[in-house]
Amino acid sequence: MKHNIYLCEECLACRDPDIYCKFRPSCPIHFMTKKGFDSETQESVSKEFSVTFLPDDIRINIPKGTNLLEAAQKADIYVNASCNGQGSCGKCRLILESGTVDTIPTSLLSDTEKENRYILACQTKITDNLVIRIPEETLEKKLKTAGMGENATQKLAGLVQAFDPMVKKYTLKLEPPTMEDTVSDLERVKRHLKQAGCDTLKMSSGIRVMRQLTQSIRQDNWKVTVSVLQKKCSSELVDVRTIHPDEKSLGMAVDLGTTSIVVYIVDMQTGEVLSAASDHNSQAACGDDVINRIVCSEKEGIKKLQKMALSTINNLSQRALACLAQTHKNIENIVISGNTTMVHLLLGIDARYIRREPYIPTISEFPIIKAGTIGLKAAPYAGVFVMPGPAGYVGGDIVSGILYTGFHNNNDLTLIIDVGTNGEIVLGNNEFLMTAACSAGPAFEGGGIRCGMRAEEGAIEKITLDTETFEPRYLTVENKTARGICGSGMIDLLSEMHMKGVLGQDGRFRINPAHPRMTVFNDELAFILEFAKNIDTEEDIIFTQSDIRSLMLSKAAIYAGFTVLLEEIGMDFSMVDQMIITGGFGQYLDIEKAITIGLLPDIQREKFKYMGNSSIAGAYMALLSNTCRQQAIQISNSMTYVDFSSSTRFMEAFTKAQFLPHTESKLFPSVIRSYFNSPSVN
Amino acid sequence: MKHNIYLCEECLACRDPDIYCKFRPSCPIHFMTKKGFDSETQESVSKEFSVTFLPDDIRINIPKGTNLLEAAQKADIYVNASCNGQGSCGKCRLILESGTVDTIPTSLLSDTEKENRYILACQTKITDNLVIRIPEETLEKKLKTAGMGENATQKLAGLVQAFDPMVKKYTLKLEPPTMEDTVSDLERVKRHLKQAGCDTLKMSSGIRVMRQLTQSIRQDNWKVTVSVLQKKCSSELVDVRTIHPDEKSLGMAVDLGTTSIVVYIVDMQTGEVLSAASDHNSQAACGDDVINRIVCSEKEGIKKLQKMALSTINNLSQRALACLAQTHKNIENIVISGNTTMVHLLLGIDARYIRREPYIPTISEFPIIKAGTIGLKAAPYAGVFVMPGPAGYVGGDIVSGILYTGFHNNNDLTLIIDVGTNGEIVLGNNEFLMTAACSAGPAFEGGGIRCGMRAEEGAIEKITLDTETFEPRYLTVENKTARGICGSGMIDLLSEMHMKGVLGQDGRFRINPAHPRMTVFNDELAFILEFAKNIDTEEDIIFTQSDIRSLMLSKAAIYAGFTVLLEEIGMDFSMVDQMIITGGFGQYLDIEKAITIGLLPDIQREKFKYMGNSSIAGAYMALLSNTCRQQAIQISNSMTYVDFSSSTRFMEAFTKAQFLPHTESKLFPSVIRSYFNSPSVN
Repeated sequence: MKHNIYLCEECLACRDPDIYCKFRPSCPIHFMTKKGFDSETQESVSKEFSVTFLPDDIRINIPKGTNLLEAAQKADIYVNASCNGQGSCGKCRLILESGTVDTIPTSLLSDTEKENRYILACQTKITDNLVIRIPEETLEKKLKTAGMGENATQKLAGLVQAFDPMVKKYTLKLEPPTMEDTVSDLERVKRHLKQAGCDTLKMSSGIRVMRQLTQSIRQDNWKVTVSVLQKKCSSELVDVRTIHPDEKSLGMAVDLGTTSIVVYIVDMQTGEVLSAASDHNSQAACGDDVINRIVCSEKEGIKKLQKMALSTINNLSQRALACLAQTHKNIENIVISGNTTMVHLLLGIDARYIRREPYIPTISEFPIIKAGTIGLKAAPYAGVFVMPGPAGYVGGDIVSGILYTGFHNNNDLTLIIDVGTNGEIVLGNNEFLMTAACSAGPAFEGGGIRCGMRAEEGAIEKITLDTETFEPRYLTVENKTARGICGSGMIDLLSEMHMKGVLGQDGRFRINPAHPRMTVFNDELAFILEFAKNIDTEEDIIFTQSDIRSLMLSKAAIYAGFTVLLEEIGMDFSMVDQMIITGGFGQYLDIEKAITIGLLPDIQREKFKYMGNSSIAGAYMALLSNTCRQQAIQISNSMTYVDFSSSTRFMEAFTKAQFLPHTESKLFPSVIRSYFNSPSVN
Repeated sequence: MKHNIYLCEECLACRDPDIYCKFRPSCPIHFMTKKGFDSETQESVSKEFSVTFLPDDIRINIPKGTNLLEAAQKADIYVNASCNGQGSCGKCRLILESGTVDTIPTSLLSDTEKENRYILACQTKITDNLVIRIPEETLEKKLKTAGMGENATQKLAGLVQAFDPMVKKYTLKLEPPTMEDTVSDLERVKRHLKQAGCDTLKMSSGIRVMRQLTQSIRQDNWKVTVSVLQKKCSSELVDVRTIHPDEKSLGMAVDLGTTSIVVYIVDMQTGEVLSAASDHNSQAACGDDVINRIVCSEKEGIKKLQKMALSTINNLSQRALACLAQTHKNIENIVISGNTTMVHLLLGIDARYIRREPYIPTISEFPIIKAGTIGLKAAPYAGVFVMPGPAGYVGGDIVSGILYTGFHNNNDLTLIIDVGTNGEIVLGNNEFLMTAACSAGPAFEGGGIRCGMRAEEGAIEKITLDTETFEPRYLTVENKTARGICGSGMIDLLSEMHMKGVLGQDGRFRINPAHPRMTVFNDELAFILEFAKNIDTEEDIIFTQSDIRSLMLSKAAIYAGFTVLLEEIGMDFSMVDQMIITGGFGQYLDIEKAITIGLLPDIQREKFKYMGNSSIAGAYMALLSNTCRQQAIQISNSMTYVDFSSSTRFMEAFTKAQFLPHTESKLFPSVIRSYFNSPSVN
């Protein structure tokens, strides 16, 4: 068998034969066989076709029968695909410019689109050489990410007083050995470390540092910088090198979101955020929400998703470092803050039981890991602290948020909401912490909404309707041509449509279906937000009855979550001292309109507080301070998780909240008041 | 540049680009380029010749200009080369059967040999296709290793009472999670471990076990075997798997000698030595003694020597496991006992400063290392305990010896000697431990002796001379045809020649040079031990005046070591309660004759005790018991190292001891008595 030929001693001893040896595309041997040396057998093994993606003219050879979504992924082109190739979201629209394909018929494409040779990437198999054009709306665009600018990073300064990183650095001038002082090099370093105040009693050292030690200490006249990684109950000597005054010790805080990833590069001496970068989590090609990601990891292997997240982070840190004249090797401290599924997948840890009752994660409190062992680009010995997550659906990002807001140290009863796919909520103060996930669904992130999209360029984020004509006026992200509606836009639209009388309190259209703004799509009524002709596309931007229904379910889930969590301890909204909104989405949220649709409770407006990307902020704090890292563990351990999935109380509250703003109108006095004062109603 | 083509992402992320990426012979890419796909450019890169080694007909292609010793090493043929290719030992004799070579003239080959096309491998460069015959005496043969048989291993039973391995195993039946009990998988395992008596407070876990955890615990109804590696001040969860009642947890004790390596496979439940194997340390091709090995590591890189030692150990463990129906993966505990240089080189740690004043090793006390990180074939998480060594020239093998003999717990004043290249000695009892290395040189192992050899097949190990004719009668190892003299044979010969009047007390020949047993070699007198014609070779087995001188220097160094160490604390030989001889060499030593030549002191014979291979015995003890591992560290830390290299007291004692038996004859009353009673003297 040909395979055996290459299983030389090195291959057999290979640490990761799954990556390097088994003729996978990632194996260098495979790479050469396929691309360079073995082109003769290539043809006979499997029939391949060339696919050219326009407008960027990216060409790739793909085996017959592969679908176009996979082909795009292989070509590193990020195509919108909320449903991870199940053919249900209809977002992966491509235009077939030349060639013939084998495509499954779908109702998600309009007749006009079909006439214009639109196809769904995930429903189309490659059986010919193809030229494919990727329409503007299908390509993932630059994401608008909260908490990235100078303002946001300046807010962080002063949050941490005493710096205490995982990797501590000591500058030592060793006494050279003599015939009277013949202790080993390692003992010598330890002796000086002890004098410098380092606890060496529980210190071990890895094989790497043992191998570099002898040369390093003698290279520059016994002057060295020594790095010691603090772990939970022990420490490890991880690096010994000559002193380079120009080198900074850097830290990296990572907000590992399901949708987007944000990276901060921090100066570990001053605490200053030196640079930042953010991008889509490239796992998005495997589905919008954590469930789709887990399903994908089960079908296609965790390694695929692990690599996607790793490459996004590694690219972001590269981008953030580029302007600093520092290299990855100077990153010696890393904190990862993400939901439980995201951190499992990043570490290559099985997440499949998170989606199955009773929703068990593999790990909740992670040990300090070395960056080199998980593939993060940094000093190989860099300490990685993963924010602990109390439950399968309440993760380290929420713990980060609590750490940042600091309400766990405070007497005030606080309700915190991270609006996202899961809608995680926390209720508590310095005496208790309760948490739950509302399974709000991806509607606020554009998932399952016909023209929904994330807060990318061209997303409609602010809307008002004319009281008479219902003519919309809107703003888009970066003021680009409108491509769809993002979460804050949908809340505005729902609120406006309700307050202006387009919708009834049950969320059903109550205006004349023949109104020029109304149309029918897939047998249901839809409101036209923008006409295709105005934005030079084939399709109007519409908001359908189903979209409204999805959005109402999402908002109802979150409100029901608040209600049930308060009820658990015999309280109600009036007792809440502050309500904190976190997450990127919150930044563009119009609190008043969110109350109008019944997403947020009708309490005094001054109690609402927007805290930005608290996940990255908490990660930043944990990066600099061991006290914060220990606090994070304490927060996670002290959180009581309330499971809603089988709670009848939650189901009742959820049903009651599926109304505008709520079936119990007394809960929303100010909304009801302005609704009946509104000229368009009646 | 072509190189860049292959530096794909995987190559860049490669853990060891030195091995895998840089077109070294060991890189799989290089392998393919050279051997499979790129044969066209092969020729042009460098001219190669084929070398065929007889009698085994091993053929290898070697670049022009390589010397034959390197060529043999590449072909995995172990050729004697005491001096590591410096051209000074004359042991790497080969016969040129066909082809022309470029060889440096040498006086180490006799005229007869030169006529018969003998060449020295290390002095001969390849400039042609060659056929080379390796003479019997040049090939390394099976070594006679002490402490390997059933007797030796049975002695070990009962030495350790309470077993306490590094990797402890727990069999757990986990309670499955419920909606009321939703802790993470890791927390669940920890909870049950705690119930089973494991201290989980300081327990961490590696990424490997985090990745396997979820599947493992669910695979067989929540029943698992959990392995926990105990480190110095913490522990690590290293393995979780379903229960396999047939699998044994094994341990491996390794005596990592400069000359030979011994491996024991031990049942960690019963303490039984299940099997054993031993072989040459394949590093021997890089020189006989530690100095040559260090020099080689500096010239050719530590990796070369590291791989040689690793492959010897891995082959031995494979051999030892073959009869047990167990695999490497069941080895979960490893103890390495070796001198300081050997363990440094095995771990790939720089040893260069061990040979330079003030003789500093990189590490003396090693942390627990995982087998997978250093390339030992075993469970990747197997704990490796390296016996600590107090000094550059007194290593863990000596600490093992003390641990085994147990004299550090005993009131009796004990002197311990490990006769070998270094001649390490220890003096002490339960109150103090002093140690020194005598730099005895490699004479007792055959180094620097014209016909010297190790105790391999055909080595003359016992000799008596006829009182009248000086006709020798001898025994060889395994009763094979004589090929040379090993250490015990040399001591016998020196003693016999002295007592029978062949040598004076100054070690000079005092018989008629015309005696039929006398000859001249390289301008000096030599005693013929066996004539070439009797053993069917080209050369007589001789013992030259220089050989005698070397041997006398070696024995003088050891005796001087004893003297100075005793003087340091104001004692003399009469106060010594017991004298322990360890090491393979000691097994064949005739104590009486060793006293006759002044190697051992003239004290009551019942005080001498031979303890066999105490290095492997101590390793065995440390394998089973944490108390023994801690004792080893204590022993190493409490040893006072006395450096002889610049001691004038040592030089004086050394000079005085260069006499047969000693210049101060009153120190050897029994020898002097029998000498003057001997009929041959006068």
